[in-house]
Amino acid sequence: MKLYFQKNDLISAIQVVGRAVASKTTISIMECILIDATKGQIVLIGNKSEFGIESICKGEIAEPGKVALEAKLFQEIIKRLPQNEGTKLYIETEDNGNCIIRCEKSVFKIMGRNADEFPSLPIVEKQEAVVVSQFSLRNMINQTIFSTANGENNKKMAGEYFEIKDNLFSVTSLDGHRISIRKTCLKDSYSEQSAIVPKEVLADLSKIMSGGLDDMVEMYFSKQYLLFHYEDTTVITQLVEGEYFHVKQMLSTDYETKIIVNRKQLLEDIDRARIMARDNDKQPLILKIAEDNLSLKIISDLGRMDAEIPVKQEGKDLLIGFNPNFLIDALQNIDEEEVSLYFTIPRSPVFIRDKEESYIYMILPVNFNADQVE
Amino acid sequence: MKLYFQKNDLISAIQVVGRAVASKTTISIMECILIDATKGQIVLIGNKSEFGIESICKGEIAEPGKVALEAKLFQEIIKRLPQNEGTKLYIETEDNGNCIIRCEKSVFKIMGRNADEFPSLPIVEKQEAVVVSQFSLRNMINQTIFSTANGENNKKMAGEYFEIKDNLFSVTSLDGHRISIRKTCLKDSYSEQSAIVPKEVLADLSKIMSGGLDDMVEMYFSKQYLLFHYEDTTVITQLVEGEYFHVKQMLSTDYETKIIVNRKQLLEDIDRARIMARDNDKQPLILKIAEDNLSLKIISDLGRMDAEIPVKQEGKDLLIGFNPNFLIDALQNIDEEEVSLYFTIPRSPVFIRDKEESYIYMILPVNFNADQVE
Repeated sequence: MKLYFQKNDLISAIQVVGRAVASKTTISIMECILIDATKGQIVLIGNKSEFGIESICKGEIAEPGKVALEAKLFQEIIKRLPQNEGTKLYIETEDNGNCIIRCEKSVFKIMGRNADEFPSLPIVEKQEAVVVSQFSLRNMINQTIFSTANGENNKKMAGEYFEIKDNLFSVTSLDGHRISIRKTCLKDSYSEQSAIVPKEVLADLSKIMSGGLDDMVEMYFSKQYLLFHYEDTTVITQLVEGEYFHVKQMLSTDYETKIIVNRKQLLEDIDRARIMARDNDKQPLILKIAEDNLSLKIISDLGRMDAEIPVKQEGKDLLIGFNPNFLIDALQNIDEEEVSLYFTIPRSPVFIRDKEESYIYMILPVNFNADQVE
Repeated sequence: MKLYFQKNDLISAIQVVGRAVASKTTISIMECILIDATKGQIVLIGNKSEFGIESICKGEIAEPGKVALEAKLFQEIIKRLPQNEGTKLYIETEDNGNCIIRCEKSVFKIMGRNADEFPSLPIVEKQEAVVVSQFSLRNMINQTIFSTANGENNKKMAGEYFEIKDNLFSVTSLDGHRISIRKTCLKDSYSEQSAIVPKEVLADLSKIMSGGLDDMVEMYFSKQYLLFHYEDTTVITQLVEGEYFHVKQMLSTDYETKIIVNRKQLLEDIDRARIMARDNDKQPLILKIAEDNLSLKIISDLGRMDAEIPVKQEGKDLLIGFNPNFLIDALQNIDEEEVSLYFTIPRSPVFIRDKEESYIYMILPVNFNADQVE
């Protein structure tokens, strides 16, 4: 194998596929990136058990071939090579399995791994492509992923639920204390599709996509896999098996109290309140709604914090407690200047949502000691 | 005590004195910042065993008094308070020891500590002030501090040696493998002074000074302490006891081989070579000097790296090995485009210095296996 690259092309491709390289594993080939230049183009592949990424890299093939290289070492070497305009980077494999990387007067010789040991990516039939902008997909992931669970007890909670229905795409996550839902309209209508996608893959995907409004991603659903394809890159992930939670039953549009509040101001006050919960992150933040006023109070071993915010109130007065971190997670993932919070009774969840329900955040309340109220 | 502040004034003062607050200690008062408003101005003080910092903070005293507050909590609260132009921040102590911090509609109540428990700073007689620019002092610290030792076995190696002689100020550090020296001319002449200053203090000092060319620092030497004074801030540190190493005897200006080399190019090549030493940071980098050419080679379990740099050579050819990290530490702390390296024999140190000896970096070589040469 003899290949020529521009340094930056190679670095971009390594960074993308590097996200699917295992960092600590007993199967050392999974710590490698495969360079496959046997089919007329140079393809880089990373493949860890949960998902794999394949990216086509610009470059010249002087002699076809393939080799697997330890990803971290490979990336470090390429990154540090000289970068002068027009200089080419040269990668060659020798018969003894060594791989030579040369750029100007710097020469590295490292061990190449047998490419045949590298596990191939699963094959996903490309039937119907669901097309969504990178901008939407990235936002929907980032605005819901925080309310997934670790998945030690329940794998489904460690995934996000993707659902396509006609021209509506929705992403749902829940962790037992709260539910986050984001919906967006697609340009076309599609047959009904759904999948539980592991959150690690989505976190990585949201980082490697450009996120442009006009840059599209194609999603191909199959029973076991979901394939994302954009530009020169393909991401294939295994799906979590089973049926997702019946979220609709947990939602409600009834309310006894509604407040409309300045989102930034509320966020800042809760953020201040969190200082007092430093040593005990289960310390509830108590909200008192009365007379178009929201008072916030938190009391802990460190001391207490009080704050007040004017709100537009509809319905009854209310006293209710929440984990301040959960409120912050939801509020900081909303773009609007004002948000509406819907309550029923102190033991029922709050819903933060817009009229169109393009976002719904549901958070369960926390009990608190009545002594703390004054 | 009743005080009014502008948020930013208070934050700056807390950040400065916060550097002298212990973070993990059994003496909890040392985790506090003292606010002392009993002497007509508001003074903030942090004091851990090795050193203390005192800073005058702008503000209004409505009622004099003093209190000690847990530094981390205090800083977090002040940082997060609302910041609107003209808004004042109010701090008040109550008779029961509580401290109220108020800004707009946010109110914190935390426990204040008895100010009398707070250890006072040592008193240093201000005799002769040695004046140096913050720019020089900061650079001299940063350009030498890397070659201090941890000080588990030898406290003197964990300090930097400050020496004033006539109008010359020099800072020296050494760790058993290398010596770093920086010298600068002062505007005035002073009586002879010297001190071994703990490196932790210098690291903190270099961070809190503005570092301006026209901003001066006064240094007052005493037997046990060194006092730095600039603007509204005073830093007092204990000194390491004893006599410093006789560094002059270890220096030499004789050489058999001299090379002049582009500093940036050499730095980049050694940085590349370090990749190969990733799993074994004692792997020597082998330098071969011959025919106005410097070849670098490193061989490890990961593979090998070779590079070549043109140099101006004077004297004999040479083959010598070094810890690449030590060379990098020295080279990246020099500003010049070209540097001169002076060698004698493979078992003797290299000296990197300029003609005026405003900087001298000495590094001991590392033995290597002759098999590695080709």
